[in-house]
Amino acid sequence: MKLTRKRLAHIVFESDDAASKRFDVVLLIAILGSVTITVLDSVRKLHDAYGTIFYMMEWAFTILFTMEYILRVWLSRRTTGYVLSFYGLVDLLAILPTYISLVVANSHFLAVVRALRFLRVLRVLKLGRYMREAQMLTEALHNSRMKIQIFLGSVITIILVMGTVMFFIEGPESGFTSIPMAMYWAIVTLTTVGYGDISPMTPLGQFMASLIMLLGYAIIAVPTGIVTSEINAAKNKKRNSDDQRTCHTCHAGNHDEDAYHCKYCGTRL
Amino acid sequence: MKLTRKRLAHIVFESDDAASKRFDVVLLIAILGSVTITVLDSVRKLHDAYGTIFYMMEWAFTILFTMEYILRVWLSRRTTGYVLSFYGLVDLLAILPTYISLVVANSHFLAVVRALRFLRVLRVLKLGRYMREAQMLTEALHNSRMKIQIFLGSVITIILVMGTVMFFIEGPESGFTSIPMAMYWAIVTLTTVGYGDISPMTPLGQFMASLIMLLGYAIIAVPTGIVTSEINAAKNKKRNSDDQRTCHTCHAGNHDEDAYHCKYCGTRL
Amino acid sequence: MKLTRKRLAHIVFESDDAASKRFDVVLLIAILGSVTITVLDSVRKLHDAYGTIFYMMEWAFTILFTMEYILRVWLSRRTTGYVLSFYGLVDLLAILPTYISLVVANSHFLAVVRALRFLRVLRVLKLGRYMREAQMLTEALHNSRMKIQIFLGSVITIILVMGTVMFFIEGPESGFTSIPMAMYWAIVTLTTVGYGDISPMTPLGQFMASLIMLLGYAIIAVPTGIVTSEINAAKNKKRNSDDQRTCHTCHAGNHDEDAYHCKYCGTRL
Amino acid sequence: MKLTRKRLAHIVFESDDAASKRFDVVLLIAILGSVTITVLDSVRKLHDAYGTIFYMMEWAFTILFTMEYILRVWLSRRTTGYVLSFYGLVDLLAILPTYISLVVANSHFLAVVRALRFLRVLRVLKLGRYMREAQMLTEALHNSRMKIQIFLGSVITIILVMGTVMFFIEGPESGFTSIPMAMYWAIVTLTTVGYGDISPMTPLGQFMASLIMLLGYAIIAVPTGIVTSEINAAKNKKRNSDDQRTCHTCHAGNHDEDAYHCKYCGTRL
Repeated sequence: MKLTRKRLAHIVFESDDAASKRFDVVLLIAILGSVTITVLDSVRKLHDAYGTIFYMMEWAFTILFTMEYILRVWLSRRTTGYVLSFYGLVDLLAILPTYISLVVANSHFLAVVRALRFLRVLRVLKLGRYMREAQMLTEALHNSRMKIQIFLGSVITIILVMGTVMFFIEGPESGFTSIPMAMYWAIVTLTTVGYGDISPMTPLGQFMASLIMLLGYAIIAVPTGIVTSEINAAKNKKRNSDDQRTCHTCHAGNHDEDAYHCKYCGTRL
Repeated sequence: MKLTRKRLAHIVFESDDAASKRFDVVLLIAILGSVTITVLDSVRKLHDAYGTIFYMMEWAFTILFTMEYILRVWLSRRTTGYVLSFYGLVDLLAILPTYISLVVANSHFLAVVRALRFLRVLRVLKLGRYMREAQMLTEALHNSRMKIQIFLGSVITIILVMGTVMFFIEGPESGFTSIPMAMYWAIVTLTTVGYGDISPMTPLGQFMASLIMLLGYAIIAVPTGIVTSEINAAKNKKRNSDDQRTCHTCHAGNHDEDAYHCKYCGTRL
Repeated sequence: MKLTRKRLAHIVFESDDAASKRFDVVLLIAILGSVTITVLDSVRKLHDAYGTIFYMMEWAFTILFTMEYILRVWLSRRTTGYVLSFYGLVDLLAILPTYISLVVANSHFLAVVRALRFLRVLRVLKLGRYMREAQMLTEALHNSRMKIQIFLGSVITIILVMGTVMFFIEGPESGFTSIPMAMYWAIVTLTTVGYGDISPMTPLGQFMASLIMLLGYAIIAVPTGIVTSEINAAKNKKRNSDDQRTCHTCHAGNHDEDAYHCKYCGTRL
Repeated sequence: MKLTRKRLAHIVFESDDAASKRFDVVLLIAILGSVTITVLDSVRKLHDAYGTIFYMMEWAFTILFTMEYILRVWLSRRTTGYVLSFYGLVDLLAILPTYISLVVANSHFLAVVRALRFLRVLRVLKLGRYMREAQMLTEALHNSRMKIQIFLGSVITIILVMGTVMFFIEGPESGFTSIPMAMYWAIVTLTTVGYGDISPMTPLGQFMASLIMLLGYAIIAVPTGIVTSEINAAKNKKRNSDDQRTCHTCHAGNHDEDAYHCKYCGTRL
């Protein structure tokens, strides 16, 4: 088969035949490999021992991703559309740091260069392209957006009021040095994380802390209830759209599973 | 448009045209701003650097809220009704501390003044006016009130009994200096917060602690189940009240909103 | 009204008129009061300051509960039935320790006496008599008993295997001194309590710990799902039994809310 | 009854008469006993005091399980099928370590021998044979496999990105010595375990940590929602498959098991 531009575009953007699937698998491995290297390189011991190998592999991955980026820019129907899309920006951010580190290495902006290097980890977001089944989940989350906002609003109010109260009760001696610090403690407590780096010392403070803990323990039920209810709704909707029967008279679809007659014109299905 | 008293009342109490919406937005920003300043002012570094600016902005917000309070008192149909309502009291508590700090500053009651200053954070409760969509959530919580009370009663009994048992097993050496302290530990453990400031040292104590943890891990399912079930019920109620039609022939209900014929027997609804 | 034995039994065992309700309220306050005193007496400072008052009040409550116990034994139809019932034993355990402490005080078994004193806290279980609305909750828990057992079995297996693996990986240096201690750590981690008194130090141990945490985070969904599903089922059942309609022909009850005809004989309801 | 091979196979593989049930109970006790001994033997004090008894009991259990293994190999219809099955491998791994420790004891591979000894704990997996009621639970988990994978994928992405960000913000001074270490911290925080061995020190780091905590607190709702929804579905499926009857007149389904007439139109089912 000749490698025409149309054929190439099919390989890059689709995944329904052998060649396009192989392209996807190679990219997937490259993404996982490059992220793994960035992570391992941050461990001092491994950096000291294998730093040169990591550096060379990083360049290999960067060249591969650069080629992929050029291909996508060249092959996409609306070039600016791709470049400015979410994945277009992620693809660019995944290759830029390596090139910039080359240019800036001679200057003194070493801290900035270090920071940029870790942007490479964002390559993991490119995996999002391969998660098509996530639709129902994101739909459920999207539908419960309003309720989750109200819930978060209430939680933040509780944290603000409780943080202020605890700052006043405990004071700087117990580590509650300011309201923001006391709010940090309130979040650590309400979400039941409980580091223990700051914890109340006075009996009254411990009583208030107990209230926050029981509150946090009880209100976790709210987001759970919201999401469960939405997932149920999304499921029922999906089940209905799975019913493929079409009415012979009025051609209407979307019938319930238990329907015997068309709900629009009354014809037997 | 002339600014009559009726027009002003509309702007202050409603939010359905440009002027009243602008009024709401200005107030919202002022509330968030004044709360932010109170929070930031509690950080010693920021207080030392920007204390004067914070003080001036605090007065600006206080004057603004005072004007809002006077407007609301003047414009509301039943003045005492507003003054004694929840939001009336919050509005008053949000401006009082600044004025009191002015009066009391010359005296020696500095600790009291400090405490009063943080009452300003309560202004955040004024945001509640803008959260109208919370109705279904609060209804679900209200319906499961009885069950949540029983659940909290059981949790408090577990905490009391377990606290007493652990106080006897561990004793003051491990930090379980009294039953209230042991109950505080039991709350920290049952709610899975786990600060680690007090933790059992003896094998028997660690065994009892394991039981409490597994119990806390299992019974969190109860409030979650209650709330989920209530949210489902609130949802079904809403959906059912959306369509009350019943088939005349087979008496089947539960028809879709867009149905013209019964889906079971085909009769015209 | 003359205080016959029958009238007294009504006051003690029922709660449907003024006198019996007053009896319940007095007992409720006495239970809460006596438990509060036991708890407060365990705080050294309060014991030193108010020890004598606590001692006197303790005796007052004990005499009151002794009178209640004698009344219940005398008035109950089947005396042995009450004495050996759950609440009969709780009532006895609530008064015995005070008397025993009197007898044993002269001997050297001080530690035993101390332990017995805290048995008084069990009086809180007497409150169970007043929690009649708990039925639906306990029914839901009872129905999901089997599934909760399987869930706990799986959790204990995970804890045993993970504890053994971590004991081998980490060893005594990190605090994993034995398999039971490592299992204690596994429980602390899986239930997301996380004291931090023992935590893995080696990279492999931290990797295994991460797996346990994510597992614990994911499988908490299982008991929640079980209980939610049971509460829904209990609710539907209750709703059905709320339908009070009875068939005129066959006198059958228990009809669904949406039923138009008796499901047993077909008569119009 | 003569102990033929067929009879023996019945006793070993089934559990529907007295003899086969007795065989199961003996094995169950032996499994629990041998696991308990391995666990207790890991406690130094108990090992020093009862090491010899543990050693002898361990050999008794090993001989018993060896006999069971030989029986199962001999009696199973397809010998290789059993040997290579999951439980076949567990049965072998449960007896091998004791024999190997005998052979290797004379050599210097003591560390390996110690490790192998703890493989005995895997015997607990043999209990899985007796958990037949777990079917509905595992089915629900199996059905939500895809969604749980997507959820775990998202969680791992959050952990990777947040770990990298925190490594850059906090640096080695606060214990974030490398990206893997920062990812370990992110897992400890997101799952609300919160050991406190590593915790953010800078204000920006504490702000980012607060975001992760609130995120972890909110997204635990997702697996819970998924599993609850699947358990409900499994339950409805079971209930519906219990009654497949449809009314001949109005085609309504969903009849109660004890119904004789359609509850909507009264027709005989």
